[in-house]
Amino acid sequence: MKKIKNIAIVGGTHGNEYTGAYLIRQMAQNSFQEQWAELNIELIMANPQAYKKGLRFIDYDLNRSFTKAALADFSLSGYEANRAKALMQKLGSKENPKMDFIMDMHTTTSNMGITIILADNNDYNFKLAAYIQTQIPECYIYYMPAESTMHSTEHCFLIAMAPLGLAIEIGAIPNGVIRHDINKKTQQVIDITLDFINQTNKGCLPKINNPVTVFKHKKTVDYPVDSTGEINAIIHQDLQDRDYQKLTKGDAIFSTIEEQTITYNEDEDLYPVFINEAAYYYKKTAFSLTEKIMVKNTLN
Amino acid sequence: MKKIKNIAIVGGTHGNEYTGAYLIRQMAQNSFQEQWAELNIELIMANPQAYKKGLRFIDYDLNRSFTKAALADFSLSGYEANRAKALMQKLGSKENPKMDFIMDMHTTTSNMGITIILADNNDYNFKLAAYIQTQIPECYIYYMPAESTMHSTEHCFLIAMAPLGLAIEIGAIPNGVIRHDINKKTQQVIDITLDFINQTNKGCLPKINNPVTVFKHKKTVDYPVDSTGEINAIIHQDLQDRDYQKLTKGDAIFSTIEEQTITYNEDEDLYPVFINEAAYYYKKTAFSLTEKIMVKNTLN
Repeated sequence: MKKIKNIAIVGGTHGNEYTGAYLIRQMAQNSFQEQWAELNIELIMANPQAYKKGLRFIDYDLNRSFTKAALADFSLSGYEANRAKALMQKLGSKENPKMDFIMDMHTTTSNMGITIILADNNDYNFKLAAYIQTQIPECYIYYMPAESTMHSTEHCFLIAMAPLGLAIEIGAIPNGVIRHDINKKTQQVIDITLDFINQTNKGCLPKINNPVTVFKHKKTVDYPVDSTGEINAIIHQDLQDRDYQKLTKGDAIFSTIEEQTITYNEDEDLYPVFINEAAYYYKKTAFSLTEKIMVKNTLN
Repeated sequence: MKKIKNIAIVGGTHGNEYTGAYLIRQMAQNSFQEQWAELNIELIMANPQAYKKGLRFIDYDLNRSFTKAALADFSLSGYEANRAKALMQKLGSKENPKMDFIMDMHTTTSNMGITIILADNNDYNFKLAAYIQTQIPECYIYYMPAESTMHSTEHCFLIAMAPLGLAIEIGAIPNGVIRHDINKKTQQVIDITLDFINQTNKGCLPKINNPVTVFKHKKTVDYPVDSTGEINAIIHQDLQDRDYQKLTKGDAIFSTIEEQTITYNEDEDLYPVFINEAAYYYKKTAFSLTEKIMVKNTLN
């Protein structure tokens, strides 16, 4: 396999998720790249204007702006549409990427702990996730296939601008807040990932035979709305903070504005994530549901 | 004592604190006022425009806009300066208030649990706080004298528009998020307060002889900054979430961008609150310090 050399570490893709933005600044200030001299690491602050304003985005979600069509569409004139094109100076195009690997740092208001999001199910990504899990046993692997997103055949995420990569998604943390503990966990995932890349480049990765548990995105669930389209229920306290815990028919999911309980009404047990994520209220999304699958993963 | 009849319950004073905004809507929808027929309750959504945009405020903090000078100053033309004047239709003026009592619902990203904020140290407010504490033993009483705020002799808070009142401040919760458990706690404080008012109006409040612990605001502590004025440290993980816990000389308070620890360097033991509050980053405020005092409070 071709060695992985060019790596982008990205923060501030969502301007109100301060963890990544701060870590980019911290790594730059503390000569982080010199610690990984075998690799070409680019530290990228993705959405500085949204960060300055403490907003997720100015005009449109930057992390939904990386389809080939959007990148080719000059008629899209918003800040993020332009910023995505400008980022191609660093990242290249999808057809001709400059980066071998992209890590994008995110946070969530949901209680998702340390989550590794994979947008592509290539063997390398899954082996890396399995390796991270040997180092951080409590971390979750969340796989979002392209067909699970708004663009059915192609990912719109920033990490889709390289053949390999992952998003780090850590919570719960409020937007606009930096937490020391969450900074350290995020940095730990970065360090383990770079260590994995270094080891695989040298062909000296230890054999590990652990099947990994993967939460595969299935669908999103919207809030109930009233006749005017306004959300008229909240996440039920019995569901709050229970990301990655099995949801079974009859479990409470919403409490309506009249304080009535709405239960989960499907026969299939699924696993909720992004429960009560602040960024998704405007889309009326209450949580996502995943299937829990085992992936045999022999690191050899 | 004059009976307390006219009561304002206010939410959405800060537009990104969704708890109060939702509860105003919920109480209105569920005919809340009918449950308290002896009282004239006004439900007020204070900053609807900021709420719609998911922002604390549009132009200026509404909850810092209620000084006599600001209310009289026609030259202040921002959204909140006008909104404060418009709210006088409901609240009256400071000299001639329409409300006997105001409750204002807030949330914080700090781990402050259930906090009752008093802006005035009149006997009634303290008795009410003592009563709330008999019903919710884990709640904290935080007293902010006028001289502790930016306006040395007069409060700029919305609750200062009535002779009596309190702010409910509950956390930790992210901005832009509604939590079922925090809704219930907030509603509980409202119900206990109205019950106290009803009982005192009837002269039948039970005798309670509990001295109450009050955290009296002393000062704010700013983040360290670099030569350009940019914040270059974060709250140390040993201080994070330890609101109301004693801070002693030598305790870690900040971790710098170079990952050096900065310790608390004062001889006096004080009690931090609003640790890592998202809304105060722009002012570079890291936390506030309070004195813990005992107030003898005989409810009779």
